Amino acid sequence: MSGNTFGKLFTVTTFGESHGLGLGAIIDGCPPGLEITEADLQHDLDRRRPGTSRYTTARREPDQVKIMSGVFEGKTTGTPIGLVIENTDQRSKDYSEIAQSFRPGHADYTYWHKYGLRDYRGGGRSSARETAMRVAAGAVAKKFLKQKFGIEINACVTQIGAVKAEKIDWDVVEGNPFFFPDDTKLEALDELLRDIIKQKDSIGAKLTVVASNVPVGLGEPIFDRLDADIAHALMGINAVKGVEVGDGFDVVTQKGSEHRDELTPDGFASNHAGGVLGGISSGQPIVAHLALKPTSSIGVSGKTIDLEGNQADIITRGRHDPCVGIRAVPIAEAMLALTLMDHFMRHRAQNADVHCSTPDISKP
Amino acid sequence: MSGNTFGKLFTVTTFGESHGLGLGAIIDGCPPGLEITEADLQHDLDRRRPGTSRYTTARREPDQVKIMSGVFEGKTTGTPIGLVIENTDQRSKDYSEIAQSFRPGHADYTYWHKYGLRDYRGGGRSSARETAMRVAAGAVAKKFLKQKFGIEINACVTQIGAVKAEKIDWDVVEGNPFFFPDDTKLEALDELLRDIIKQKDSIGAKLTVVASNVPVGLGEPIFDRLDADIAHALMGINAVKGVEVGDGFDVVTQKGSEHRDELTPDGFASNHAGGVLGGISSGQPIVAHLALKPTSSIGVSGKTIDLEGNQADIITRGRHDPCVGIRAVPIAEAMLALTLMDHFMRHRAQNADVHCSTPDISKP
Amino acid sequence: MSGNTFGKLFTVTTFGESHGLGLGAIIDGCPPGLEITEADLQHDLDRRRPGTSRYTTARREPDQVKIMSGVFEGKTTGTPIGLVIENTDQRSKDYSEIAQSFRPGHADYTYWHKYGLRDYRGGGRSSARETAMRVAAGAVAKKFLKQKFGIEINACVTQIGAVKAEKIDWDVVEGNPFFFPDDTKLEALDELLRDIIKQKDSIGAKLTVVASNVPVGLGEPIFDRLDADIAHALMGINAVKGVEVGDGFDVVTQKGSEHRDELTPDGFASNHAGGVLGGISSGQPIVAHLALKPTSSIGVSGKTIDLEGNQADIITRGRHDPCVGIRAVPIAEAMLALTLMDHFMRHRAQNADVHCSTPDISKP
Amino acid sequence: MSGNTFGKLFTVTTFGESHGLGLGAIIDGCPPGLEITEADLQHDLDRRRPGTSRYTTARREPDQVKIMSGVFEGKTTGTPIGLVIENTDQRSKDYSEIAQSFRPGHADYTYWHKYGLRDYRGGGRSSARETAMRVAAGAVAKKFLKQKFGIEINACVTQIGAVKAEKIDWDVVEGNPFFFPDDTKLEALDELLRDIIKQKDSIGAKLTVVASNVPVGLGEPIFDRLDADIAHALMGINAVKGVEVGDGFDVVTQKGSEHRDELTPDGFASNHAGGVLGGISSGQPIVAHLALKPTSSIGVSGKTIDLEGNQADIITRGRHDPCVGIRAVPIAEAMLALTLMDHFMRHRAQNADVHCSTPDISKP
Repeated sequence: MSGNTFGKLFTVTTFGESHGLGLGAIIDGCPPGLEITEADLQHDLDRRRPGTSRYTTARREPDQVKIMSGVFEGKTTGTPIGLVIENTDQRSKDYSEIAQSFRPGHADYTYWHKYGLRDYRGGGRSSARETAMRVAAGAVAKKFLKQKFGIEINACVTQIGAVKAEKIDWDVVEGNPFFFPDDTKLEALDELLRDIIKQKDSIGAKLTVVASNVPVGLGEPIFDRLDADIAHALMGINAVKGVEVGDGFDVVTQKGSEHRDELTPDGFASNHAGGVLGGISSGQPIVAHLALKPTSSIGVSGKTIDLEGNQADIITRGRHDPCVGIRAVPIAEAMLALTLMDHFMRHRAQNADVHCSTPDISKP
Repeated sequence: MSGNTFGKLFTVTTFGESHGLGLGAIIDGCPPGLEITEADLQHDLDRRRPGTSRYTTARREPDQVKIMSGVFEGKTTGTPIGLVIENTDQRSKDYSEIAQSFRPGHADYTYWHKYGLRDYRGGGRSSARETAMRVAAGAVAKKFLKQKFGIEINACVTQIGAVKAEKIDWDVVEGNPFFFPDDTKLEALDELLRDIIKQKDSIGAKLTVVASNVPVGLGEPIFDRLDADIAHALMGINAVKGVEVGDGFDVVTQKGSEHRDELTPDGFASNHAGGVLGGISSGQPIVAHLALKPTSSIGVSGKTIDLEGNQADIITRGRHDPCVGIRAVPIAEAMLALTLMDHFMRHRAQNADVHCSTPDISKP
Repeated sequence: MSGNTFGKLFTVTTFGESHGLGLGAIIDGCPPGLEITEADLQHDLDRRRPGTSRYTTARREPDQVKIMSGVFEGKTTGTPIGLVIENTDQRSKDYSEIAQSFRPGHADYTYWHKYGLRDYRGGGRSSARETAMRVAAGAVAKKFLKQKFGIEINACVTQIGAVKAEKIDWDVVEGNPFFFPDDTKLEALDELLRDIIKQKDSIGAKLTVVASNVPVGLGEPIFDRLDADIAHALMGINAVKGVEVGDGFDVVTQKGSEHRDELTPDGFASNHAGGVLGGISSGQPIVAHLALKPTSSIGVSGKTIDLEGNQADIITRGRHDPCVGIRAVPIAEAMLALTLMDHFMRHRAQNADVHCSTPDISKP
Repeated sequence: MSGNTFGKLFTVTTFGESHGLGLGAIIDGCPPGLEITEADLQHDLDRRRPGTSRYTTARREPDQVKIMSGVFEGKTTGTPIGLVIENTDQRSKDYSEIAQSFRPGHADYTYWHKYGLRDYRGGGRSSARETAMRVAAGAVAKKFLKQKFGIEINACVTQIGAVKAEKIDWDVVEGNPFFFPDDTKLEALDELLRDIIKQKDSIGAKLTVVASNVPVGLGEPIFDRLDADIAHALMGINAVKGVEVGDGFDVVTQKGSEHRDELTPDGFASNHAGGVLGGISSGQPIVAHLALKPTSSIGVSGKTIDLEGNQADIITRGRHDPCVGIRAVPIAEAMLALTLMDHFMRHRAQNADVHCSTPDISKP
């Protein structure tokens, strides 16, 4: 209820601050019999890890995950899966500046007002470091969905600043440090980001996340429509300010005769809907977009106030991510995976006799 | 769990199909002592009601709500508030065409696959008629928030097709049939919609919803951030395909030094964040935008398939809404009200000693 | 969260006071395709109804239930089932005495302190009248469980005052006004209750409820063990003060070598456990007992205080149930049915590949 | 939903098997500002720990708890509190016998059927070792309740086999190895348990748990009455088969004129109800009783079947608890504390303006 649990049937509850003893999570409700190892989780954790290129922060977080329970002889047992990552880099630092004033654009101000006190070390609970546990848990969901339905979930960065991808070529995404799907724009991106780094500033980004081979039937109207829950999952990622499903804001200027996806005996003729109709998956690929703000931890001085309300200036020292959107790629995949996993179980609870299936259009 | 309940502490559970005996809702968790009457609910129901202008469908739905329980001597008692609207216009009609094939862009196809059967009369549960109950329940939340904090929640239509509002003048919103905040565009809208109606087509819309006087401190990180829950609430409205908080997708091209809202002794210097920082309300106005697709119930013939998977043509007969976005104005307000109400109670449960307050910047 | 919803996947949310406009419930999560009619619900409602014998209160409550939604062409559609019973007997009465003081043994005192106000008419929400909706919803669960697994759920009264059943003969239970399973004790019961009625007093009762043909595998350790949830369900019935599963309090004096149910190739050799091991159903009959206190609404004067805290005397006028335990028989069955139904769905969500089954001991 | 979370607002989610890497828990929703240290948790963990007397098992489990997050500078921050206890004694053992057959009276059989596989090492998740985490989390709740309301929660063993306490003297409870409140019976208990140990058998027990200084107003009718949730909490403890609130099963033979607790200007004249009326705390002490079965892990040979369904004999080797009820004392206290804590927060969410208070009878 205090917001640290995601999902209703396949639940992930996380704990941990950026500078505490460690991070952890409990996955509850995982079906028994799934083969899973720490290496399965580590793969996505490594994609999220900072310090992998010149365009991400140079902080070192080995992020080595340990499975504490719920797996026996290589398989999930149906009991809760406990995960822990110990924080290795907690050297004491001088937080006096950050402790006495609120960084603009950060959660410092709101946490302090909400709870009446705050762990000011490196952002505490509001640090993006917490997303490591989402990525670890998402890897479990991804593996289940892949094995059960052949579902593939992939995200990429489709825009940074004014540089937009003009095509989506999944084959190049993992081969460049921007997770960018259009290799004709890599040079422009390199130039943009070097410039941003030089200015000690940061820049926003747009991501696209796609799930293919999703069976028809996932999603619970009225309030927990699949698209509503996807919006919840993605808007819950640090720095996200906008979410679209399918054509998103482009629908504002569309006519009904353009937007509706017509049906043919071979399937849908288009996918303006982004794979969701009436809040339920249609069997088409699910397509969502998200907008991430530029990080507020920058080297450009800004106006703020201190705890007593006096005017002050603030500047974030040390390396930071010039574009936090880049490292959000595995997080977006994880959140979509967790959403689909949860909805698969919700569907199955009520409708196990109507097996959700890959879209055979002519039969329920 | 099957998606018909909204909220965790101030919960609204709804039932009802467009052509069944009626609609209903149970509000559970309303604080005791709130003065409420059926008239309080009826006001917003009337704003949502069809048939009020030439630009909305001509169907007649009196939508007269009855409070069945939970109110005694004019005040809520803390026990569940039962609401019922009886369906008066359920005359039998010929549904054979709609029963045998799937309307493109509708939930027909997905409901049939999810449940293995469907109530095909007028959309059944997927009909926008169901939103009447959200509006009724939202009116209770609105009244509480207004009395407790002076919170005001208002929505308007800021774009239809290519016609955009260039200013937001709340004084003109309720005075025109488009809930449009820029009266210099009313003529263009009239022309646009007459044209759409003549073509028997439909058109998308963008709405903006704003809550002012929101106290600082609402929202539960990590997963149930206030903005994530707002995204869930708004994306769960029929036809919505995109949601933005604050600057939304504009952040993609912003720099950190532009986007972050600086703090001064007199408050924030800007509101790019849309009133939410780190998932917690900052005390600034909450600003969200939503994109609504053009309705798929149009008089333009389209390709579809029948239950056996054979190609077919389909056309929706009778009057329909040329722009469903217009009638969504009170729904958007209701969903934002329900979200804030629920988060107020969630905050209070954990932090009652840190009263959430109007933003006195210098004290928690 | 305010306690008016039962279940997590097959949820029942109720509303209504004894003297308001009516009672209602929403069943959410019912699997689609179940044949159900109002008559199916009415059967158990009639078993619970007052005024059916000289041993129950003479109040007239026709309790005619209406299905408002969720059923189409005789079958559940998977959408929420709305139920309403209108209150027909709400004639205005003089409640001034009851409004000004607290009936001892009633919820008057605690509701007033909890909510700061109360609907004092006939007990308001705390009236046992509310249980009508549990019985109606329970009938839906019973029908599903019967069709899916052949589960039979039956309750009877096994003790009233000092009169104990010495055998359980289910064939006689529905044939006597006490739902008593031992027909050699009917005369003694008649005498006991006539005496109680003459004294204007009331008497406690013990009930036994049994579910047979329950598949092995239902129940979610650690906290939501099947027996823990049965205890929650049964202790939540008005007037219940004790719950036992299997041997219950008799285990205090048992040795481990006596209590444990040994296994043989033909099944368990005994059922001391009452059908639950480690919180999970074992495939044996589930057996529970519950103790119901004597109603506090009696014609014997008692000491109380008024709203100002002054000493007062109080007496309940009019006919009341001399033994509320009798009418609780269908309620106990309904609550056990709702518990099993919910756990069936919870099990299926996680373990659909391990179909819960009638106990074939040698295979999982 | 898979049962590893307790509570709705103050939630405790646990993980861990008896022979895995360790145990853990996440407490979510703890109010900020509570002073808490590992020592606060360790005190009750030590009371539960095995090997402290000749009457409990000789296994060594140091049970050293570590607070991973959620506490900063000695105070809770409102963010999730992560707890971990590493398993130190996991030496590999020969589990081949236990792996191939089902111990009668254990969860072996039901886990295997539910999940299709099981961690057979020492009971896995069904081991009572899991309760260590409940005790640790309960200690946090206890401390909050004590500081906020002065609530004291104490349990004792009131019967083992045929030896009953005839008085409750709290002063002697912590001074004897049975947590027994009647020191005239200690010799008889010593004799009984020596005898049971000699027979390699085990014996049942009855516990009583009392909370004093509970404010009036806690509990959520209809389904989540305080007594229903207490029954859920206590019946969810390993080995519990019966729960009573107040007079419990004694009410069966009581008359209404005896049972009802009359009110006087100085408070209630008696406490047959056990501190709960209409599902809401009355301000009187909450009194509950629970019955624990004798452990099934005994040195007396028993009949069972193997995985193929063939008849087999089984015997548990090594030391075991002759009476598991004894070590359940801190667990019962913890579960009652967690229940009250959760209900306090649920009450506060809805009714913060009606502060729940120590019972000043004359005012709400």
